[in-house]
Amino acid sequence: MTAAHGDTGLLAPGWADSAAASATSDHAYLRALLDAEAALTRAQAALGLAPAEAATAVTEAAAGARAFDVPSLTERARAGGNPVIPLVAELTKAVGKTYGPYVHRGATSQDIMDTATMLVAARTLDLVLADLGRTERALARLAAEHRDTAMPGRTLTQHAVPTTFGLKAAGWRALVLDARDRTTAVRDSLPAQLGGAAGTLAAFGAYGASDPTGLPAAYAGELGLRAPELPWHTLRTPVADLAGCLAFTAGALGKLAVDVLTLSRTEIAEVAEGSGGGSSAMPHKSNPVRSTLIASAARRAPQLAATLYGSLAAEDERPAGSWHAEWEPLRDLLRLVGGAARDAVELAEGLLVRPEAMRAHLDLTGGLIVSERLSAELAPVLGRARAKELLTRLAAEGRPLAEAPELADADLDPTHYTGSAGALTDRALERR
Amino acid sequence: MTAAHGDTGLLAPGWADSAAASATSDHAYLRALLDAEAALTRAQAALGLAPAEAATAVTEAAAGARAFDVPSLTERARAGGNPVIPLVAELTKAVGKTYGPYVHRGATSQDIMDTATMLVAARTLDLVLADLGRTERALARLAAEHRDTAMPGRTLTQHAVPTTFGLKAAGWRALVLDARDRTTAVRDSLPAQLGGAAGTLAAFGAYGASDPTGLPAAYAGELGLRAPELPWHTLRTPVADLAGCLAFTAGALGKLAVDVLTLSRTEIAEVAEGSGGGSSAMPHKSNPVRSTLIASAARRAPQLAATLYGSLAAEDERPAGSWHAEWEPLRDLLRLVGGAARDAVELAEGLLVRPEAMRAHLDLTGGLIVSERLSAELAPVLGRARAKELLTRLAAEGRPLAEAPELADADLDPTHYTGSAGALTDRALERR
Amino acid sequence: MTAAHGDTGLLAPGWADSAAASATSDHAYLRALLDAEAALTRAQAALGLAPAEAATAVTEAAAGARAFDVPSLTERARAGGNPVIPLVAELTKAVGKTYGPYVHRGATSQDIMDTATMLVAARTLDLVLADLGRTERALARLAAEHRDTAMPGRTLTQHAVPTTFGLKAAGWRALVLDARDRTTAVRDSLPAQLGGAAGTLAAFGAYGASDPTGLPAAYAGELGLRAPELPWHTLRTPVADLAGCLAFTAGALGKLAVDVLTLSRTEIAEVAEGSGGGSSAMPHKSNPVRSTLIASAARRAPQLAATLYGSLAAEDERPAGSWHAEWEPLRDLLRLVGGAARDAVELAEGLLVRPEAMRAHLDLTGGLIVSERLSAELAPVLGRARAKELLTRLAAEGRPLAEAPELADADLDPTHYTGSAGALTDRALERR
Amino acid sequence: MTAAHGDTGLLAPGWADSAAASATSDHAYLRALLDAEAALTRAQAALGLAPAEAATAVTEAAAGARAFDVPSLTERARAGGNPVIPLVAELTKAVGKTYGPYVHRGATSQDIMDTATMLVAARTLDLVLADLGRTERALARLAAEHRDTAMPGRTLTQHAVPTTFGLKAAGWRALVLDARDRTTAVRDSLPAQLGGAAGTLAAFGAYGASDPTGLPAAYAGELGLRAPELPWHTLRTPVADLAGCLAFTAGALGKLAVDVLTLSRTEIAEVAEGSGGGSSAMPHKSNPVRSTLIASAARRAPQLAATLYGSLAAEDERPAGSWHAEWEPLRDLLRLVGGAARDAVELAEGLLVRPEAMRAHLDLTGGLIVSERLSAELAPVLGRARAKELLTRLAAEGRPLAEAPELADADLDPTHYTGSAGALTDRALERR
Repeated sequence: MTAAHGDTGLLAPGWADSAAASATSDHAYLRALLDAEAALTRAQAALGLAPAEAATAVTEAAAGARAFDVPSLTERARAGGNPVIPLVAELTKAVGKTYGPYVHRGATSQDIMDTATMLVAARTLDLVLADLGRTERALARLAAEHRDTAMPGRTLTQHAVPTTFGLKAAGWRALVLDARDRTTAVRDSLPAQLGGAAGTLAAFGAYGASDPTGLPAAYAGELGLRAPELPWHTLRTPVADLAGCLAFTAGALGKLAVDVLTLSRTEIAEVAEGSGGGSSAMPHKSNPVRSTLIASAARRAPQLAATLYGSLAAEDERPAGSWHAEWEPLRDLLRLVGGAARDAVELAEGLLVRPEAMRAHLDLTGGLIVSERLSAELAPVLGRARAKELLTRLAAEGRPLAEAPELADADLDPTHYTGSAGALTDRALERR
Repeated sequence: MTAAHGDTGLLAPGWADSAAASATSDHAYLRALLDAEAALTRAQAALGLAPAEAATAVTEAAAGARAFDVPSLTERARAGGNPVIPLVAELTKAVGKTYGPYVHRGATSQDIMDTATMLVAARTLDLVLADLGRTERALARLAAEHRDTAMPGRTLTQHAVPTTFGLKAAGWRALVLDARDRTTAVRDSLPAQLGGAAGTLAAFGAYGASDPTGLPAAYAGELGLRAPELPWHTLRTPVADLAGCLAFTAGALGKLAVDVLTLSRTEIAEVAEGSGGGSSAMPHKSNPVRSTLIASAARRAPQLAATLYGSLAAEDERPAGSWHAEWEPLRDLLRLVGGAARDAVELAEGLLVRPEAMRAHLDLTGGLIVSERLSAELAPVLGRARAKELLTRLAAEGRPLAEAPELADADLDPTHYTGSAGALTDRALERR
Repeated sequence: MTAAHGDTGLLAPGWADSAAASATSDHAYLRALLDAEAALTRAQAALGLAPAEAATAVTEAAAGARAFDVPSLTERARAGGNPVIPLVAELTKAVGKTYGPYVHRGATSQDIMDTATMLVAARTLDLVLADLGRTERALARLAAEHRDTAMPGRTLTQHAVPTTFGLKAAGWRALVLDARDRTTAVRDSLPAQLGGAAGTLAAFGAYGASDPTGLPAAYAGELGLRAPELPWHTLRTPVADLAGCLAFTAGALGKLAVDVLTLSRTEIAEVAEGSGGGSSAMPHKSNPVRSTLIASAARRAPQLAATLYGSLAAEDERPAGSWHAEWEPLRDLLRLVGGAARDAVELAEGLLVRPEAMRAHLDLTGGLIVSERLSAELAPVLGRARAKELLTRLAAEGRPLAEAPELADADLDPTHYTGSAGALTDRALERR
Repeated sequence: MTAAHGDTGLLAPGWADSAAASATSDHAYLRALLDAEAALTRAQAALGLAPAEAATAVTEAAAGARAFDVPSLTERARAGGNPVIPLVAELTKAVGKTYGPYVHRGATSQDIMDTATMLVAARTLDLVLADLGRTERALARLAAEHRDTAMPGRTLTQHAVPTTFGLKAAGWRALVLDARDRTTAVRDSLPAQLGGAAGTLAAFGAYGASDPTGLPAAYAGELGLRAPELPWHTLRTPVADLAGCLAFTAGALGKLAVDVLTLSRTEIAEVAEGSGGGSSAMPHKSNPVRSTLIASAARRAPQLAATLYGSLAAEDERPAGSWHAEWEPLRDLLRLVGGAARDAVELAEGLLVRPEAMRAHLDLTGGLIVSERLSAELAPVLGRARAKELLTRLAAEGRPLAEAPELADADLDPTHYTGSAGALTDRALERR
């Protein structure tokens, strides 16, 4: 219960204990901050602006993240409003007198903070992408296997016309692929940040660089990030792009989740999670916990993204508030999406499908689920108005349509009325 | 760098290391969860539904929060989607064979989780209220002291007419008092939660209560919370009320912050934070860090509140997603506001005011800052249209109005044109 | 298709054609702006600052709202960024040469705009409150009528234990009463706005008032609004309070809507809207359209409220952006809630309840819906662990519990396990 | 004041009376809905599923949008919850008995509504893109012209080190280009919607198509939209993509706006809008109205986008609420961004730049604005610690650095310390 015991996700079963949780922890940020500092000295050494020994010394000191005390850094971050200030002091001390002056030389706190954030984002997105890949493959299998499994299509909560579970799973997968494509594009575009106090690279010149404009690319190269076109201290495209792809991914997985939640209802039970959560007092309960947690993430992500989009309007060369307002929401988004992607793998790989329940439900409306087809087929025979009249009357009577003499010759089999569901599923599965 | 090292706020200089941070940590939630469990057994004992010894045994076991391992509980929370399930197992074991069965008896996870959340909220709001009190007293002193300190009134970024710093501070204080009043009302209304699996209190009857409807009040009494009218598992008024008062408080303090940020600008410098944050490479920099962090909180709070308002539409007797989506955003709001209130105390108590800068700026427009007064006074003499024409011409010429022969007799002293600022300040300060 | 044909709500079936739509139209705002201008001159006349004839002349000219051309005002609003500037010009002309100078005298655009907004809000909230009243009375009738109608309690989409429809309806009503109470409090607190250019009332002094501080109360009195303590140009408590109560009301009605949507599903069909929306090609479809539209409003309201809470942090004496960002979202919220309240009346008054479907669903789990009760009752007999074992085994076997010899003496009737649902319903209905 | 007088934007000076306002009006949606219906019949005719005469008849009837009464359609939209239902009835009547049955044949309301929305979006984005183009060209000119105009770089509201106005303008332009690129990509991806009642295209088969999977592409071709891979009734990628690019564009322009607002302050006055908004009583006021309105849009857009991202989690084959929740927010976003882009053109093309004010402000800190450079240059001479000590002492003394004997040889000219601002500007301007 001391301050040193930090939060490990007690309120966050959706992301706690996941790889994304580790990749976005305070310690992961510390690691990334140190990586950014070390890369900066190495890049300067590579361009002849610092001795090679300085690069080695800083890199070695930075490697020992365990030596840095996060709670203490946190406490000292308060005065200046960011953790880089105390970290630089501590790293400089660790490097020692000779090469200490090469730590953080020419940089501003935001250079390091933004670069570390991009590193954390890149590392987390790699995890997300791997889980999206597993999810889409599981969904592809479900779509292929159930290409022709007919089930009720539901609109505004009511049975409309039949569809197939294959088409539904193919749709889920299409969204996951959309998420993958957007996330991949953003991941590959994440830039390092380097501009110095006001984004002019001036201090690097003061420290001897004849043309510092090559430094950002060298720095980015050290970190596997993209070289920035301009310092982006208040040109927040990378953060907004992350907001967009993460909100999208949360929502894409959210669609899968809300469908599973609906189809899992006790009265519907057309699907079930592979391993539902239980209740001690009610042994029959098998709750769709994975879907619940994904749905919960999908409810939160848009508002977190909104805060990030709101930070685009950042005044001056460093804004007083909107930059600081990015840090936690972006981390939250990365975690939420990382956790949701983990749960989506488990959900998609374990999903139990019950074709017999789907088939049974197709009969719930006594044939009315194919009334659209009957409308179409009777119209040329009876005229549109009389056809509609007839079907409306039969619907109101509540008897199964099969008993209506007027429909004696009609094909009332709902599994025959799935339209192009199969062909659409095939087409969707061709996408890689 | 092990999982056991949790987050302590490295990304959150706005709230890290504050009393509110401690009051909302994972460990504080654990404490509150245990308090809720113990109170439940005590309330049952008080009504004769459990032996007194059971109440004692559970209370004692629950007292030892250190015995419970948050990271392990977090990990096990994943299966069922909430931390109460593993906590009950562990607490039951700690209580022992005889009285273990009285742990959590008749309750559902949400009873404990919601109650603990209300406890955490109550404890944090008490801290917030204390800081709002200190802030408003400091602002009252500023308003009284500067009742007649004239300064430019600014609208749409431009000097309009004079106002006083006293009226400005009185306005800041009025918002803080509005926040205090709203927060106090919500704090006093926070209810315990008790309903059992679907909110009918049925299990308590199954365990022997002849009329369980008295149990929630007894339970609330043990915890110093309000007795609920109904179980509120999906009637989320208490959470929405918290969202509203916290978003309001963040915004109220945000107004103070954005004003200080503006007035602190290098070119304006009419106020300064008592102890600004520095920069190692730029020793002259004294950044308004407290205001920056408060402004940052004000940017985030509305979207967090939006997620909570969105959770009002919670289906069934326990929703699959919207409840889980409340936990972290509510905690975030409590922390952000707790941190902002801490910073507001420091900001208000330490604010440096520079009346001479204010006075100097009143002359920046060469007298035009009182053009409204001149319009009013010249209109009866010259007619409205000609008065306006004259002033527009003089404004366009850009010379000081004092040099215009037409205004030879006019009172151009901006400190004489502060209207009722003083009287309004006095009135506002009467509010307690 | 000319510009003069404005929007009438083609995209907004949720609020179009409602009383709230009329109360919040551009024309309603024009009406309120004119009311505010007329009241200002009357208040000045009442305090001897303007001739009585001026008050009469302005009031008469303002009465003819038809004479003012909204599209033209809109067009001219662009230059200065608000519609009051061109409106004052036009009203002054309409009043004529003699008393024209008394139009808007001493005021700033924001005085009129904010006051008009409060008038529109007051008028719309009166409509909302009337509809909330009708809704809660209909829900009270449903709760009383179905006090003992047992139905499945559902948590995380799964049957948990029985509840009653009476308790569910009583819960919906409790939220509507919470909304009514919060809305009533806010409605009664809505203030007029009067401060002049920078909130000091200085211009009123320049025009001759010896103590202008009484003017705001006189002005508010003319309009039936509350007298402001201070000018609130950048102290936006009234707008934030509106945001809170409107987001709350949308969510409260949203809970009713999502429950009806769930219970209306083809497979559940425990309730139905009185008059569902149809489909031309599928004559059997009866869509829960009222619930759909209310749910849609509940999804939008929180984010609109977030924008308004975000505007609390308004710099200076009039902010450059945050004030303008309030106008449309506040109107949208008023409309959405007004429309949702209208739909809630129709929904609650027309709701069809199907107790037989509820009763039938209680048997869907083959008795497991009372497993909690069995756990409680068997534990003292078999011990907690063996009782749980037994029930888990029976649940896994999937046979009806009634066939299990171990439970031969158990009361498996789910309608006997509704706990205190009836008593809680009674208690809730006592609230007025 | 009759219902027929719709809203024309009285509360929306930011977008009213713009081309985007016309492109997103109720009448523009009506036009797009009719275009969609006509294209559907034409596409069916092209595939031999309807007589060519039917296509002509529907296209001709649809051309006469004036014949359709928006307020009446709005009113009748309420029953079914969308405007397509009454529109189809009316269009069918207008087409007449013979070909009326070919209107809307096989389609569902959402096919038409979504397609019309994409048409409106495409038409509005074209306007936005044109205005972004003009804006970036104006900003490019500013950047080139002021490549070497030195000005204070400001961080956390305080002067940090010098920068140039050229680099600032180049940064604004880079964001506008980012917005252009994202908007172009989304505009080119907007798909038509066609799936029938549950997205299986089944009805088209019932009406005789042997393979309806080619129909969506033919339909899209008629409208200049992209052919959808799958029906996207509940796969809302296109709407989420619009949300993202519109929130981004609003924020990108918002950065320009907040910078202009800051630099326009009376005390700073380094830039001014070409034609500021005035005040009748204060003739000197020249308010940055364009920036104010853009900033206002940037405050609203993120929350509107959040609602749209939230609608990704759409259950079933058509959701009960989340689809309806998209309509107005998407239109609002299109309007806001359309209006902001219009204002940005005016702002960028008319911006007045005052290099002399910028130059003067560089001296405000008495040389401390180059303290970073002095730190760098003195460190090798005095040692890092003593250099810092010296500068800190001089900063505290408050005298101009030029008077300090220790700095007699230092280059204190701030215009010499703009680092790579020029080179970065050049590089940024190479981007097209």
